[in-house]
Amino acid sequence: MNPPISQSIAHLAQLSRRELVERCLADAGKAQSVFTRLYPEAARAAADQADAMRAARVETHALAGLPVSIKDLFDVAGETTLAGSIVLKDAPPAAADAEAVRRLRRAGAAIIGKTNMTEFAFSGVGLNPHYGTPANPRDAAVARIPGGSSSGAAVSVAAGLCVAGLGSDTGGSIRIPAALCGLVGFKPTKRRVSDAGALPLSTTLDTVCAMTRSVQDCLLVDGVIADQPLSPPALSVNRLRFAVPQSVVLDGMDEQVAASFQRALSRLSAAGAEIVDMPLTPLREAPEINRFSGPESLAWHRHLLAEHEAMYDARVAKRIKLGATLSAADYVDLHRRRADWIRRMEAELAGFDAMLMPTVPTVAPPIAELEASEDEFFRVNGLMLRNPSTINLLDGCAVSLPCHAPGDLPAGLMIAGPAMSDARVMGVALSVERLLAGN
Amino acid sequence: MNPPISQSIAHLAQLSRRELVERCLADAGKAQSVFTRLYPEAARAAADQADAMRAARVETHALAGLPVSIKDLFDVAGETTLAGSIVLKDAPPAAADAEAVRRLRRAGAAIIGKTNMTEFAFSGVGLNPHYGTPANPRDAAVARIPGGSSSGAAVSVAAGLCVAGLGSDTGGSIRIPAALCGLVGFKPTKRRVSDAGALPLSTTLDTVCAMTRSVQDCLLVDGVIADQPLSPPALSVNRLRFAVPQSVVLDGMDEQVAASFQRALSRLSAAGAEIVDMPLTPLREAPEINRFSGPESLAWHRHLLAEHEAMYDARVAKRIKLGATLSAADYVDLHRRRADWIRRMEAELAGFDAMLMPTVPTVAPPIAELEASEDEFFRVNGLMLRNPSTINLLDGCAVSLPCHAPGDLPAGLMIAGPAMSDARVMGVALSVERLLAGN
Repeated sequence: MNPPISQSIAHLAQLSRRELVERCLADAGKAQSVFTRLYPEAARAAADQADAMRAARVETHALAGLPVSIKDLFDVAGETTLAGSIVLKDAPPAAADAEAVRRLRRAGAAIIGKTNMTEFAFSGVGLNPHYGTPANPRDAAVARIPGGSSSGAAVSVAAGLCVAGLGSDTGGSIRIPAALCGLVGFKPTKRRVSDAGALPLSTTLDTVCAMTRSVQDCLLVDGVIADQPLSPPALSVNRLRFAVPQSVVLDGMDEQVAASFQRALSRLSAAGAEIVDMPLTPLREAPEINRFSGPESLAWHRHLLAEHEAMYDARVAKRIKLGATLSAADYVDLHRRRADWIRRMEAELAGFDAMLMPTVPTVAPPIAELEASEDEFFRVNGLMLRNPSTINLLDGCAVSLPCHAPGDLPAGLMIAGPAMSDARVMGVALSVERLLAGN
Repeated sequence: MNPPISQSIAHLAQLSRRELVERCLADAGKAQSVFTRLYPEAARAAADQADAMRAARVETHALAGLPVSIKDLFDVAGETTLAGSIVLKDAPPAAADAEAVRRLRRAGAAIIGKTNMTEFAFSGVGLNPHYGTPANPRDAAVARIPGGSSSGAAVSVAAGLCVAGLGSDTGGSIRIPAALCGLVGFKPTKRRVSDAGALPLSTTLDTVCAMTRSVQDCLLVDGVIADQPLSPPALSVNRLRFAVPQSVVLDGMDEQVAASFQRALSRLSAAGAEIVDMPLTPLREAPEINRFSGPESLAWHRHLLAEHEAMYDARVAKRIKLGATLSAADYVDLHRRRADWIRRMEAELAGFDAMLMPTVPTVAPPIAELEASEDEFFRVNGLMLRNPSTINLLDGCAVSLPCHAPGDLPAGLMIAGPAMSDARVMGVALSVERLLAGN
């Protein structure tokens, strides 16, 4: 089984876009629960256009004609957006493409399909009772979770069917599956990317973003969807200064993630980076403050839920209904407390190039264990979301990089910074990626 | 009784700042319920500095050394900010000046005192049971309301004690008193002016701004507090196109305001402006959507209110407690509905230079009538806030200009536009002010 794509974008320069798209479409048609819809004609047209332009030696965007997937929550003109649900099946079709989709098309990307996701982007696990749960491609022996909510997006890239998966990240929905599937996932500062035409979960936290095979590929996609490419500084590892928080984010690591994280820190130290362990105790307050998605999703869903609750994934309905416990004044308070928390966090992080933590504390657990027990599902879900969601609360940006030893199950190293430090964080990520790739 | 200041700033060019400040301080000390605190030493120092600079032919800001007042809700370093209340008397002093105050000082303004206001900036009427209600200086025979919530700010300017009164406008708190006291009041687009260090009422709607004697004076102050002067275009009245909404905003006008408003429209028409009556029916939805101040003020006040409700103005406590009826999801919905409403309003207003309406539908009623009846208080309060608050909901900008005939009680003409149309609205205001000043 030779996947159509196994390298980052720069290595695909010589390939015919049409041939690549055909191979990806063929395999995508066979992939279980990864895509909810395919766009063979539009993808072929984009590939042909890119090949023709290249033949005519016209400069094209690096993404032109390359297979890209989009998460099921982005509007495509003329189609009903389902967001992994069945309850919206009779909803009216979208009038226009989502802004991020429009920008990908404008760059010439060959959008080959819409990817499966957890219903309405809830949960970091990846289970979907309606469309099935795509298995994590990194373990052929045991069907493990892909992570969520951008589950199909991650598998579409990890299985070699796409160069990038467009998704969204409200509490880790790009970074969790990237970590569990051995990919690079970048959650930029929210305000940098338009979320027009993306079905909302939390209007305060939702961030439109993508996962890819490399930091460079993530930069390419980010430049397109943000409509303004970042210019990351060239940074030498031996001049970098990292904060490694000791509160909360290291709790509950399994042996494999602990070893992978330690391996990354040791390499950074050996290369001359300064690693500063710090308590960063405000992290303990994050769960108390980070309660925006409840009321925000309830506001969107309550009428639908009142009429059609039985059509919802029960785990999702339960989470949404929790939003009813907050009053308007409570919610206003949360925003005030968040602003104060961000100020304190930013003050502690001043002077560091980035903060480091394991993206998630465990490798991907088997799907069967989580399907068997709702308690176990919610325990693992909480564990998956715990670290990444702190960066959404921070209004910050973060990239998850693979940091496991070859042959091990994937583990992610999260490199994070405050709002609008995207160029620096990605500059750091380019250096760290290079270091970890060495022997 | 010759007031120290009776002309706009340009006409004060030759006067000694120190002499002017001395006269204003002397009269301010005698004014009833207008100031809650005076700053004689700091005001004299600013005046002396301005005189010295002018003597040395050093260029100074047009506001340098001129008497300005600040509403009681702005922080001054080392002082407890009371915002017209008694319940905060034991609160800790402010650590720093509010940003707008800092910018006024940097421009050299002589801040002569803090002005009285309605408790916590609630109500457009101007009554304050703790510090008294300053009488509207425009009627020597009957004690009429000054309008609120920036009541003392308006009287400080209208009585000739200041060139400008710094205040805030959440639903009309600058424009209502400007209209009732015959001044110019400008509410800019909220995001243009920092509200740091101003005690909040509604974090969604609060706008830091000022009232003055002329549009040009408002532009001067706005440039300082926004830290970026507007450049209003020069506009000829005969090329202007105005929308005059027929829904809601013309209801309940008394004869004097109706005549003043009609007088303004007739003059504009006669000068060649195009006046387009339009239904603008979304205005009917405004009260249903504009419910942000309840929960937002409740979030700030609820702990204080739980312990010290008896120290609050009962009318204010009643308004704040209404915020408890909304859930977090309701509040999130209001924001979504507001965004949709703004889109529809902006679409209807496209192609117009500005929208025109009476700032408030009546002239200032006698204080005694409103003190005598809570029902009458709330009826008049609703009438005062009705028109101006639509512009806060629009996230727009608006200026209130005097439009009454000489000798009549003041009436205000509101010239309004959508978010960030500040330069155009002020350009229109300069032309309209010139036209209405002619014979």
